[in-house]
Amino acid sequence: MERSMNLEKITLGTCYYPEHWPEGMWEEDLRRMLENGIEVVRVAEFAWSKIEPREGEFTYEFFDRFLEIAERAGMKVIFCTPSATPPAWLTNRYPEVLNARQDGVLYRHGCRRHYNYNSPKYQELVKRIVEKSAAHYAAHPAIIGWQIDNELNCEVNEFYSESDTAAFRVFLQEKYGTLDRLNEAWGTVFWNQTYTEWEEIYVPRPTPSNSTNPHEVLDYIRFISDSTCRFARMQSDILKKYVKPGDFITTNGLFGNLDNHRMTEESLDFITYDSYPNFAYCLDSYEPDDKSMRDRKWSRNLAEARAISPNFGIMEQQSGANGWNSRMEAPTPKPGQMTLWTMQSIAHGADYVSYFRWRTCTMGTEIYWHGILDYSGRDNRRLSELKEIHEKAGRMACVAGSRYQAKVGLVRDYDNLWDSVVDAWHGRVERESGKGLFEACQRKHTPFDFCYLDHMKAEELSKYQVLFYPHATMLTQQMTDKLTAYVEQGGCLVLGCRTGYKDETGKCVMSKLPGLLAPLTGTDIPEYTFVSPADGTVYADWDGTRIEAAVFNDLLAPLTEDAKVEARFSSSYYAGTPALISREQGKGRVYYFGGAFSEHTAEIFLEKLGVAEPYADTVVLPEGCELAVREGEQTYLFVLNYLDECAAVELKKECVDLFTGETVSGSMELKPFEAKVLAVGK
Amino acid sequence: MERSMNLEKITLGTCYYPEHWPEGMWEEDLRRMLENGIEVVRVAEFAWSKIEPREGEFTYEFFDRFLEIAERAGMKVIFCTPSATPPAWLTNRYPEVLNARQDGVLYRHGCRRHYNYNSPKYQELVKRIVEKSAAHYAAHPAIIGWQIDNELNCEVNEFYSESDTAAFRVFLQEKYGTLDRLNEAWGTVFWNQTYTEWEEIYVPRPTPSNSTNPHEVLDYIRFISDSTCRFARMQSDILKKYVKPGDFITTNGLFGNLDNHRMTEESLDFITYDSYPNFAYCLDSYEPDDKSMRDRKWSRNLAEARAISPNFGIMEQQSGANGWNSRMEAPTPKPGQMTLWTMQSIAHGADYVSYFRWRTCTMGTEIYWHGILDYSGRDNRRLSELKEIHEKAGRMACVAGSRYQAKVGLVRDYDNLWDSVVDAWHGRVERESGKGLFEACQRKHTPFDFCYLDHMKAEELSKYQVLFYPHATMLTQQMTDKLTAYVEQGGCLVLGCRTGYKDETGKCVMSKLPGLLAPLTGTDIPEYTFVSPADGTVYADWDGTRIEAAVFNDLLAPLTEDAKVEARFSSSYYAGTPALISREQGKGRVYYFGGAFSEHTAEIFLEKLGVAEPYADTVVLPEGCELAVREGEQTYLFVLNYLDECAAVELKKECVDLFTGETVSGSMELKPFEAKVLAVGK
Amino acid sequence: MERSMNLEKITLGTCYYPEHWPEGMWEEDLRRMLENGIEVVRVAEFAWSKIEPREGEFTYEFFDRFLEIAERAGMKVIFCTPSATPPAWLTNRYPEVLNARQDGVLYRHGCRRHYNYNSPKYQELVKRIVEKSAAHYAAHPAIIGWQIDNELNCEVNEFYSESDTAAFRVFLQEKYGTLDRLNEAWGTVFWNQTYTEWEEIYVPRPTPSNSTNPHEVLDYIRFISDSTCRFARMQSDILKKYVKPGDFITTNGLFGNLDNHRMTEESLDFITYDSYPNFAYCLDSYEPDDKSMRDRKWSRNLAEARAISPNFGIMEQQSGANGWNSRMEAPTPKPGQMTLWTMQSIAHGADYVSYFRWRTCTMGTEIYWHGILDYSGRDNRRLSELKEIHEKAGRMACVAGSRYQAKVGLVRDYDNLWDSVVDAWHGRVERESGKGLFEACQRKHTPFDFCYLDHMKAEELSKYQVLFYPHATMLTQQMTDKLTAYVEQGGCLVLGCRTGYKDETGKCVMSKLPGLLAPLTGTDIPEYTFVSPADGTVYADWDGTRIEAAVFNDLLAPLTEDAKVEARFSSSYYAGTPALISREQGKGRVYYFGGAFSEHTAEIFLEKLGVAEPYADTVVLPEGCELAVREGEQTYLFVLNYLDECAAVELKKECVDLFTGETVSGSMELKPFEAKVLAVGK
Repeated sequence: MERSMNLEKITLGTCYYPEHWPEGMWEEDLRRMLENGIEVVRVAEFAWSKIEPREGEFTYEFFDRFLEIAERAGMKVIFCTPSATPPAWLTNRYPEVLNARQDGVLYRHGCRRHYNYNSPKYQELVKRIVEKSAAHYAAHPAIIGWQIDNELNCEVNEFYSESDTAAFRVFLQEKYGTLDRLNEAWGTVFWNQTYTEWEEIYVPRPTPSNSTNPHEVLDYIRFISDSTCRFARMQSDILKKYVKPGDFITTNGLFGNLDNHRMTEESLDFITYDSYPNFAYCLDSYEPDDKSMRDRKWSRNLAEARAISPNFGIMEQQSGANGWNSRMEAPTPKPGQMTLWTMQSIAHGADYVSYFRWRTCTMGTEIYWHGILDYSGRDNRRLSELKEIHEKAGRMACVAGSRYQAKVGLVRDYDNLWDSVVDAWHGRVERESGKGLFEACQRKHTPFDFCYLDHMKAEELSKYQVLFYPHATMLTQQMTDKLTAYVEQGGCLVLGCRTGYKDETGKCVMSKLPGLLAPLTGTDIPEYTFVSPADGTVYADWDGTRIEAAVFNDLLAPLTEDAKVEARFSSSYYAGTPALISREQGKGRVYYFGGAFSEHTAEIFLEKLGVAEPYADTVVLPEGCELAVREGEQTYLFVLNYLDECAAVELKKECVDLFTGETVSGSMELKPFEAKVLAVGK
Repeated sequence: MERSMNLEKITLGTCYYPEHWPEGMWEEDLRRMLENGIEVVRVAEFAWSKIEPREGEFTYEFFDRFLEIAERAGMKVIFCTPSATPPAWLTNRYPEVLNARQDGVLYRHGCRRHYNYNSPKYQELVKRIVEKSAAHYAAHPAIIGWQIDNELNCEVNEFYSESDTAAFRVFLQEKYGTLDRLNEAWGTVFWNQTYTEWEEIYVPRPTPSNSTNPHEVLDYIRFISDSTCRFARMQSDILKKYVKPGDFITTNGLFGNLDNHRMTEESLDFITYDSYPNFAYCLDSYEPDDKSMRDRKWSRNLAEARAISPNFGIMEQQSGANGWNSRMEAPTPKPGQMTLWTMQSIAHGADYVSYFRWRTCTMGTEIYWHGILDYSGRDNRRLSELKEIHEKAGRMACVAGSRYQAKVGLVRDYDNLWDSVVDAWHGRVERESGKGLFEACQRKHTPFDFCYLDHMKAEELSKYQVLFYPHATMLTQQMTDKLTAYVEQGGCLVLGCRTGYKDETGKCVMSKLPGLLAPLTGTDIPEYTFVSPADGTVYADWDGTRIEAAVFNDLLAPLTEDAKVEARFSSSYYAGTPALISREQGKGRVYYFGGAFSEHTAEIFLEKLGVAEPYADTVVLPEGCELAVREGEQTYLFVLNYLDECAAVELKKECVDLFTGETVSGSMELKPFEAKVLAVGK
Repeated sequence: MERSMNLEKITLGTCYYPEHWPEGMWEEDLRRMLENGIEVVRVAEFAWSKIEPREGEFTYEFFDRFLEIAERAGMKVIFCTPSATPPAWLTNRYPEVLNARQDGVLYRHGCRRHYNYNSPKYQELVKRIVEKSAAHYAAHPAIIGWQIDNELNCEVNEFYSESDTAAFRVFLQEKYGTLDRLNEAWGTVFWNQTYTEWEEIYVPRPTPSNSTNPHEVLDYIRFISDSTCRFARMQSDILKKYVKPGDFITTNGLFGNLDNHRMTEESLDFITYDSYPNFAYCLDSYEPDDKSMRDRKWSRNLAEARAISPNFGIMEQQSGANGWNSRMEAPTPKPGQMTLWTMQSIAHGADYVSYFRWRTCTMGTEIYWHGILDYSGRDNRRLSELKEIHEKAGRMACVAGSRYQAKVGLVRDYDNLWDSVVDAWHGRVERESGKGLFEACQRKHTPFDFCYLDHMKAEELSKYQVLFYPHATMLTQQMTDKLTAYVEQGGCLVLGCRTGYKDETGKCVMSKLPGLLAPLTGTDIPEYTFVSPADGTVYADWDGTRIEAAVFNDLLAPLTEDAKVEARFSSSYYAGTPALISREQGKGRVYYFGGAFSEHTAEIFLEKLGVAEPYADTVVLPEGCELAVREGEQTYLFVLNYLDECAAVELKKECVDLFTGETVSGSMELKPFEAKVLAVGK
């Protein structure tokens, strides 16, 4: 079931903290928001104490007053459950609700997200306040939707409390039934790790060399994801009992060790994303590399959000400098960047963009996480820019509901994603190809989607002309079947090195590699190796084109008669050995490449497979600009200039510039940080 | 009340550890010291067990014997309280006296300074031994003064024991009275941190992302300083009951998280400083940057000591290579450096210089913290150099009691200093300007004083022609009044970016920036930003002179008619925006600069404001030499050559070279590491 | 008593884990091994649970079955005690058996080597299983030897459990008898560390600045070594009761904080070493420095093994890529490297080479620690290379039992080795000279031995023409006597800076330096210093040859009439001061050099003292090749080419190429990674 946001128009919102300001300011603040195009405010995600100031004492007056004023002003409200920040009285009285470091030291009051998902006491107290809040507020006419918690798995996404160990044992008992099966799955015979009692099992604890059985750690990450999903669902199940018809339930992400698809399917109407591209400019982490994608990298994250909800919302969109008092030091967005990043979000499928936050907080850890307004609240440059965005958004109402278009899919699945965290060898190829494929698509103006194999049906894949599945080290029969069906139906599947050498436990298979995909690929891998650091770059020759075979090399051999050697290594001791083999099956073709995909290599693949620059007949634009396309009534081209310099664009078809309403064609110049949205008839 | 050392002549001392050597060596050691110019020894700061070897068993024989020999030899003695190193029996029996890491792990016996200031048991045991030692030894004729503890807040200056939490609550109760006021001051409404019971409050504990409410942390640092001051005062109050008339009480510093002014005012007759410029040459931390100030940087620390006591003492002055067995690896001072560093100390106001230590210790962590003599105790090069220093000191007796002269003041205050530790945004500008202003004054031979606004009266400021207060982010009305009075009386005040956006809790003000100083400066700050790392250096144009506006830019606008735009930014998107605004008030003028002061910028300010090179009519010297000036009967110019090469100096007036007694003028050459003291009539 | 391995021929083995594979695979695996030259398998070192699956339940069926199959196949077996990996039931029931971090956090189940040696409970349980295993298996005809535990002191070689503190107190009571003597030895009077009860003493615990009394830490390392030796001996004493005549007891190393000589003397028949030269090519630690020795550095480790057992075994020899899932990422050995590294081991004295491991494990932390076969077990390139190695080994049977030849000795002793870990000043010179001397010997094709002064008799030293003892900072009379005897009998002893300034407690001596060696060297050291980082390189002039005097300089002076100044410093403030002094005593000569031995300096010493290139009349080879020589019936020259390029070698005498049986002379070319073994008549 698809879980997307349904809006009639591109809608702007903001995050507001009535508890941070004198009540006398509320009405004026709401008036100014509306005047500048803000139609929705999110409130209450860190306000447990405003509703339950002492254990069991519930009061609704504060938000009653706020909601009354909001309703009167005509402002819509997203209301939040407050579980992200338990009150001091709670954690002091029930320290068992706290999360811990791996060595057992508890995370204490003073920051946020210091609780664990599995504490029965915390679950009890959260259920009570969610129930009471939902019962009291859900019917309020100002409210249009609910946010569960805030940024689940942010700050810390590993959990080491005693409650987590207890829950982990239950999780494992449900999964494996017997210890024998668990011992088998985890390969505990290695290093004499065999378990003889369930009580011997804990969440990973300190060990020499900081290494725990990897199959256990993989299950542990699955367990964290499961705990998070169950925690969200616990709240969602309560909210669903009370929400008005038409009101939605969401939460804001995206964070690690979490199957966001499952959480959305179980508990949400759609996902929202918190987009802060300005992180790319933080002084304490800036990379002066000219080839870096900087803020443009956030398009990769937005593609992740879109993979969950084709039309999603931005719950928190950068609107000022960001930072904490203790870390992160970012400049103020330059003129145009706030607009650029808003259009980047919309380009990728966001129909709702809510700015974090209206006023910059004057206290606490986030005094530097600037909102639209600075501390004084006076009108400023960013407020003016908001007004302009609002005008632009008004002119692109037609875009709402339209869908991002891509003919290239980058295949992922949560198990392999998590394995690449547990496993350094897997992680190294995954990072290289993840970066290389993204950047190649960006620079070649080739829109792509992330395709989560574990959450898609085979038939959903068939809309993609080419699928890259760079390093599916873990393979199951079900995954293999889906990929085979895709190829047979005419798809072009590209696999990279290290495919198929593990099963779903993360243990290595003893069949010929690439394991379950050997038959489909017609490929055998008699030997493999990391690219030796003493060797420098290893290349392969693909019909005269030199491509890098980065990081790790599978030394290939045709397994079947119909396997075709497309390229051979041209360096190291395995020069001459096949590096790329293809094979037809059904109407499609599969490629097995014995390396990771660095950016240039990925570009060559896009070109050779005929999917690069699919809109080249409509618009020609420089590498520094992103092209994103949404299709609805018309085709909407988003041209986004991330650079602090002008960009020359050539329109080869007549388009309508949505912001001006003018028909345009031929040469066009984008100013620094400028974004344009152009409509072309289909 | 001014708390300075009063000595008739420049006096030399050393640190001696009778407990480290056979008693038979004492007499000969003291004789050799006196023969080489040492008139004072400090003893007993790590000797608790020599007085109380077992709990409650007190014995005075050891130091009785030593003091008798000292008296007979004619050696004066500074006696110490032993609280820096509790005995093993004490910490083993009463682990509650120990300090802890933030995660609760106790610091144990084996190093030093492992105790906390707030343990009632430790206070009880320290009070007893101080009382007993003072009662027994204070009247001894050899004793001339007392040192409390040793290097308070060295090694560790954060405290996380249970006693600290108990005392922190008392500190906060006294400060705020009610939890409501505390919650307000700390802005606990942010992230739902509101406290409902005092027992919910702790010293900062482990949190996700290692971040605790910054207003709480600021109060916590104030609490550490308060604890240290109270601990010193507890001892001082006892000592005062016993010390002979004329004997002094001091301690040696300077260390962080401590209001050294308050401690001195409450508990000491003057401060002493431990000066180890050779740290600059440690192999494990050496910076090969040619532009670094290396050992010359210690002049900045000496200026800090002088800000507390215009005539101070050096309790520990480098006299050999330094290091621990576990870290710090420094070469032996080169010929001349021991003299140079002694003269550096005297130049900045020290009238007492005590070398650490007579003999190099043959055991324990500090076997590489060399004293004058090496392990064997034989005569060596450094002892010869001591003898020469003694001769030079004898010829500069007139310098004693004279005062360092400066027309430039660098304003500081403890709250802003501590906030710059809590707050990374504040810290970054503070570090840049602290370094830039110091180095500019050094290279431009412009003596300066540190002026602690929280410990000075407005009238004390008026002796300075120019005050730089680079980043007073936290402002109070009292501070504003002092600064305003200074300007009105004819002073020139220079403020840098980020001034005045916080109140005394560290929360941000909602008035126009620079907040309380907006009226005086006639300046408004409609926008501000870190210099983007993508922008490189941002410049401003000041009447044709290009200056860097480093790190952070306030984009200025005149607030009042009489505000004068002195300079405008010349790069980034805010080129053309005012970068420097001045305004006259009363007889003076204030400048607001929208950046941090990098060295070159600071030099331009010194020149444009007419305070650079104030002694250029007397002496012209290269950048590599420091010029320091003390005034008494005459004006004493200290010319210090830090480089391992000769320096050409031009005397434009006749001076007397104090070391030779000769009248000198015209060209003069300083040898590598040479120091000269020249007297000129006033 | 010499403890070497006695084999009739170069023998190959492997490590096999029957518990990792279906029993049905065993027979075929053993058959394939034998077919490829493997004659021995090591088993059971991580198999506690296969013998004692639950506390007190012992079963022998598993290994009975395996041994029966092995016997039938004709495969010899090394059986292991299983103490390296306690079962989950054990550590969960008796957490006191666990080792801990210094802050007290226990290392838990999930990795390996998480136990401590001093837990009475662990000792009890280990004794029981060793006794039972030995009683059951020792007589088995397939078994030829036993391995105790696995890699003692690997992963973690510091121990902080409560049992360790208890045992440390006993160790100290036995060593010192009284606390007074302990306080004296540790210099506890420094920083008031005096102990008054034994209960006040602990293993080093957390302290401020992470520094504990260095004399205590030195004793603590001695205690760790003692604990390890006692733990090995506890097992050896049991095994000795049961092993068949002719069967051996060994363990595999080499790891830190352990006197491997003592352990071997007390408990083993000989030592075995685990040799993984491919670590040099790990992606996560590769140093692209051209001058690095890379895999050739393992020759230094092999020399360490040889210092214990002149003919030793390799229990684990690299046979594939290595790594864990959590860290370490290495490429597959290139064609030839597996052979090269095998010949490197043999060249240095190994007569047994056992490859780790037969099959690559498909589960657990070490899925990337590849064996000969990959996951599938199919024939592969490395198996082919094994077969070739086997053929070569067959042709060099005569080499077995022959001895590595060296005329140069590098003197070491455990106390100074451990002190160089405790003491950063000592460590810095030790590392420089250790590297410099090794690399000089390598590049100058000058075979050397490590000579452990604390485990050799004076007469054993006399076979060396030159001994380098670079930095014997700690000296005893016994050591001095041995060195003096060596010189008097005609030896040439070369000492470096910092010799003799400490006694056996690590405290500094108060006599003239170099302390006990002042008379022998005729040298006095009036001053010393680290080479200042501001000075760059310091040189000395040795009869017109410029040599670096690296890291630390002793400024020398002749102490006696017969001392001869050989070289003088030529830079820094001590230019002209003696840097190298020699003196004759008896038939020999001693040199005292006031610096550490960087590589070029070490080469000059080799040349000036006439020991460089001792085989230059037989073979001339490039720097990139190692020359090692074993002598038996004939002289066997090992020429090892570590580079990925050809090497030209010139044979000046006729030799027999053992691999081909051909007589060769004149020019010869080695292929990349090629190794040759050449026999010449004596």
